[in-house]
Amino acid sequence: MSKNKVTITAEPNKQEVFITREFDAPRALVYKAHIDPELYVKWLGPRGLEMILETFEPVSGGKYRYIHKDENGEYAFHGVFHTMTEELMIQTFEFEGLPEPGHVTLDTMRLEALPNNRTRLTIQSVFQSVADRDGMMESGMETGVVEGYEKLDELLEKMS
Amino acid sequence: MSKNKVTITAEPNKQEVFITREFDAPRALVYKAHIDPELYVKWLGPRGLEMILETFEPVSGGKYRYIHKDENGEYAFHGVFHTMTEELMIQTFEFEGLPEPGHVTLDTMRLEALPNNRTRLTIQSVFQSVADRDGMMESGMETGVVEGYEKLDELLEKMS
Repeated sequence: MSKNKVTITAEPNKQEVFITREFDAPRALVYKAHIDPELYVKWLGPRGLEMILETFEPVSGGKYRYIHKDENGEYAFHGVFHTMTEELMIQTFEFEGLPEPGHVTLDTMRLEALPNNRTRLTIQSVFQSVADRDGMMESGMETGVVEGYEKLDELLEKMS
Repeated sequence: MSKNKVTITAEPNKQEVFITREFDAPRALVYKAHIDPELYVKWLGPRGLEMILETFEPVSGGKYRYIHKDENGEYAFHGVFHTMTEELMIQTFEFEGLPEPGHVTLDTMRLEALPNNRTRLTIQSVFQSVADRDGMMESGMETGVVEGYEKLDELLEKMS
């Protein structure tokens, strides 16, 4: 269990979610775990799923598509990278399993270098509607975020 | 002057803007004017500016960058195309002239085929904050939208 906890904030009637988490690793390493395909598949998403990174161009103007799979099925996601730097990553995100396509979020992630080689990560996800935001919150995304970052903790410990 | 008017809606305290406009042209033609680079530069934005389309990949996963210029200066914009189909276009948008980078919108455009070879266009722009949304509204974007679509009317009339 990590001593660093995730905070997920979703104000009523807003079409956005904020996620904050700290890591006991320097920013360059946290960023590397987001752009190195061999590292990325090891930590993103909930435990117990295999991640297949089908397309991954982690540069400004690039695109991505990945599939999370387990014995129950496959869950595919895709999007585009608007900005991709160590301080600021802005990308779109769409889950392909919804009844209709076109429900997309704009995700802005910042990595802030803290004293003692630590890093603070903040993500803002902006949705096309409050209903889309509430649907995402009810989908169990919290488990994926919490477990993903615990796996990232474990990975960062091995890397450093 | 066109009989088709733009409607721009920005509810107080929301981080989104809606734009609606109809065109007296079939959907395929309206879409073509959005993805053909030679047509696109002829109508996008306010009158009196030259448009230079530096990068233009109007497909899902593509990117774009363009510059509007006049005797007073240059205004550059860039983003990525998340979805690019005749019915649904989803893209990011960033004006490079702001004091800091990273203020990005998620724009969802739908083209609906109407009777009599007419088309209804709707755009939702979602912002990272209400302040960003209000800043855009105060920037004179309405003139650009109104004049751009008047130029598009003129272009569509020549095309059909």
